[in-house]
Amino acid sequence: MSKRIVIVGGGYVGLYAALRLQQRLRSGEAQVTVVNPENFMVYRPLLPEVASGTLEPRHAVVPLRAVLSGTRFVAGRLTGVDTQRRVASVAPEAGPELELEYDELVLGMGAMSKLLPIPGLAECGIGFNSLAEAVHLRDHVLRQLEIASATSDPELRRCALTFVFVGGGYTGVEALAELQDMAVDVLEGYPEIDASEMRWVLVEAMDRILTTVSEDLAARAVSELRGRGIDVRLSTQLESAEDGLVRLNDGDSFRASTLVWVAGTKPPPLVKELGLPTDQRGRIVVDETMRVEGHPDIWAAGDCAAVPDLQKGGVCPPTAQYAVRQARRLGDNIAQRLRGGELKPFHYKSKGEFVTLGMNKAVGEMLGRKVHGRFAWTARRAYYATQIPTWNRTIRVLGDWLVGMPFGHDVVNLDSREEPRGAFQEAAGRRA
Amino acid sequence: MSKRIVIVGGGYVGLYAALRLQQRLRSGEAQVTVVNPENFMVYRPLLPEVASGTLEPRHAVVPLRAVLSGTRFVAGRLTGVDTQRRVASVAPEAGPELELEYDELVLGMGAMSKLLPIPGLAECGIGFNSLAEAVHLRDHVLRQLEIASATSDPELRRCALTFVFVGGGYTGVEALAELQDMAVDVLEGYPEIDASEMRWVLVEAMDRILTTVSEDLAARAVSELRGRGIDVRLSTQLESAEDGLVRLNDGDSFRASTLVWVAGTKPPPLVKELGLPTDQRGRIVVDETMRVEGHPDIWAAGDCAAVPDLQKGGVCPPTAQYAVRQARRLGDNIAQRLRGGELKPFHYKSKGEFVTLGMNKAVGEMLGRKVHGRFAWTARRAYYATQIPTWNRTIRVLGDWLVGMPFGHDVVNLDSREEPRGAFQEAAGRRA
Repeated sequence: MSKRIVIVGGGYVGLYAALRLQQRLRSGEAQVTVVNPENFMVYRPLLPEVASGTLEPRHAVVPLRAVLSGTRFVAGRLTGVDTQRRVASVAPEAGPELELEYDELVLGMGAMSKLLPIPGLAECGIGFNSLAEAVHLRDHVLRQLEIASATSDPELRRCALTFVFVGGGYTGVEALAELQDMAVDVLEGYPEIDASEMRWVLVEAMDRILTTVSEDLAARAVSELRGRGIDVRLSTQLESAEDGLVRLNDGDSFRASTLVWVAGTKPPPLVKELGLPTDQRGRIVVDETMRVEGHPDIWAAGDCAAVPDLQKGGVCPPTAQYAVRQARRLGDNIAQRLRGGELKPFHYKSKGEFVTLGMNKAVGEMLGRKVHGRFAWTARRAYYATQIPTWNRTIRVLGDWLVGMPFGHDVVNLDSREEPRGAFQEAAGRRA
Repeated sequence: MSKRIVIVGGGYVGLYAALRLQQRLRSGEAQVTVVNPENFMVYRPLLPEVASGTLEPRHAVVPLRAVLSGTRFVAGRLTGVDTQRRVASVAPEAGPELELEYDELVLGMGAMSKLLPIPGLAECGIGFNSLAEAVHLRDHVLRQLEIASATSDPELRRCALTFVFVGGGYTGVEALAELQDMAVDVLEGYPEIDASEMRWVLVEAMDRILTTVSEDLAARAVSELRGRGIDVRLSTQLESAEDGLVRLNDGDSFRASTLVWVAGTKPPPLVKELGLPTDQRGRIVVDETMRVEGHPDIWAAGDCAAVPDLQKGGVCPPTAQYAVRQARRLGDNIAQRLRGGELKPFHYKSKGEFVTLGMNKAVGEMLGRKVHGRFAWTARRAYYATQIPTWNRTIRVLGDWLVGMPFGHDVVNLDSREEPRGAFQEAAGRRA
């Protein structure tokens, strides 16, 4: 009988494992089902460019149904796993729960923001993990410029023009750098605002940023950011953010309408409830073939799993580069297991990394060499454009870049915050 | 002293009147201020293509700040007009109200959905006037396909696959035709759904659709739609839509997850409260030069005004074509008034109209000739691409079309419904 492989999560792990299985499996050998709440995967390295408007949101995503043509797709959210009966329970967006039986189960559930118990953070912070957050942040920043230029209240104006990012990993640095670059660029449309009135602050608890690249490249990034007037505060922590009043542990405090929290992630809460072994950070414990300890028919990889790093020791870093390679190895290992073959451990050494700092600005390491400036930025674009799955997306991404080149950043804020049915409620007289 | 011209509304009337004044006025002759809640204008004829995903939402809008470079822009909502003191009160998104003094006031406030007191309509209907609604509708339709393909409940499946549009004007026909065309096209990604399971219904109270084109073209549109399996019900009305159960006055009733109401518009409620003369449909009464009766310093045009149609008699139809021409004449008349020149009446005869029925399908009239099929569709695209203000947008629109051509419709639903801060609330433990 054909085996049933259920893959939970449509991120890097889910997508690339399913793609690998599509290649490896003979027709009829197994039925692969991918479960994900959305029918797309966000190509995360492009999120900062979505936030700065250089890329259309839809072009930074991979349509799972189009890519996974031989694979069943179910739009839903995992609610639990019965490891005895080998059943994954899935809640679709509407209607009764589904029970998906499996012979092999793959967990690629990713990670979510890890908040610290800082007063006010939950009320006014926003993360930078999803497409909705990136699009919102772009609209939000542009909206602050509108608020500042329309108001006659100087305190509101200062507050609207202050943007705080907590976390100097590459997510925070890229998001801040791209958005600040955009904001400076669009200011020519706001004659009422002077660039010096904007205040961009990067708060990092450690004494350096970008721990995934070498120290001198990180230092170069800091001086590039500072050269643009960005207030980079190393060895500094957020103490509170009540009612928009940001207090730092260096004694400084100021009002800010924008607080982006990008200081760490954690596996989603469901992981804990599955009854699988987890490490002290809540990640699923797997062996070097990515099988879950004590559960030979369950696999996990990516940010939700603690995959041993056989090159450097410890656990693999939670980056896209590692997740993609883990997923491919995982796919191969499942194919091997179905045929009684030998499982292989996950071995990978990072090829380098790029950090975008805005249009034509980046730092990075590729193949052991340090690069920066326009060259690094172009190399980064070329790399990601060719890595995003399907030609359709590659062409659309290149098209956005090409068409955007002569025009610079765009000032339109589409107000994604608006309730689409609000206008109708208003027409019905339900709203003032 | 330099005169102050305040333009309320950034739609066709506001944008084109301001553009005309930019051209006509000498430097220092007047200060023009445009007030609009959003910093963009939606290029309405392209909304159906946004809904079908052929165009990126951002490419169907005109960035007001970029286009109106010599004009002051204030992001805010009009709350009232003091005609004695000549002051327009404006509520910005945040902070205290602004008082804008004017010498000339232009009202281009557009229109909103006009609902009938049909039980259930306000609860489950959605309009098709704004970008938010178009984007939502696209996501909503694609989400219904996901729901139908994931569920094991046959009734939920039928309900999810039933799409009802009420109103056979060109808004309703274009929205339905584009969305149905998209849905049929993307079904190849949903092997679980057969095209015959989808049910698309167009409900029109009159015995014909598309009253703005000739009867035989409208009849051609009906047979084209019926040929695609769309259930076009003429001389039929919606009786109720309680809990998603759609009841028509022909005795039929069925469940539908999608109910689009595009059966008429009305001026926004504020118009009534301004103390200006209005007609029985709530539109501001203006003379043929577009001055408001009894208020020589207030002007109105577009959907919120009853502009006499000197060609055909009665009042001008509420279409973009008329609004643009009214705005230009209005701008000229204000420039004349500032200089003590003679005001001219608004004279215009429609040049024709196109109705898109999906990819490569359209009907229309241009320069007195009836056209249909691929030719009409191509002519429509060429016309709108060149009419959308700024080269930036023309190129982006053409780029979307060009890049989209080999790929067909896209199945990605970006779930614009998602609360962007939801993930963060969840991370903070505020949500299950």
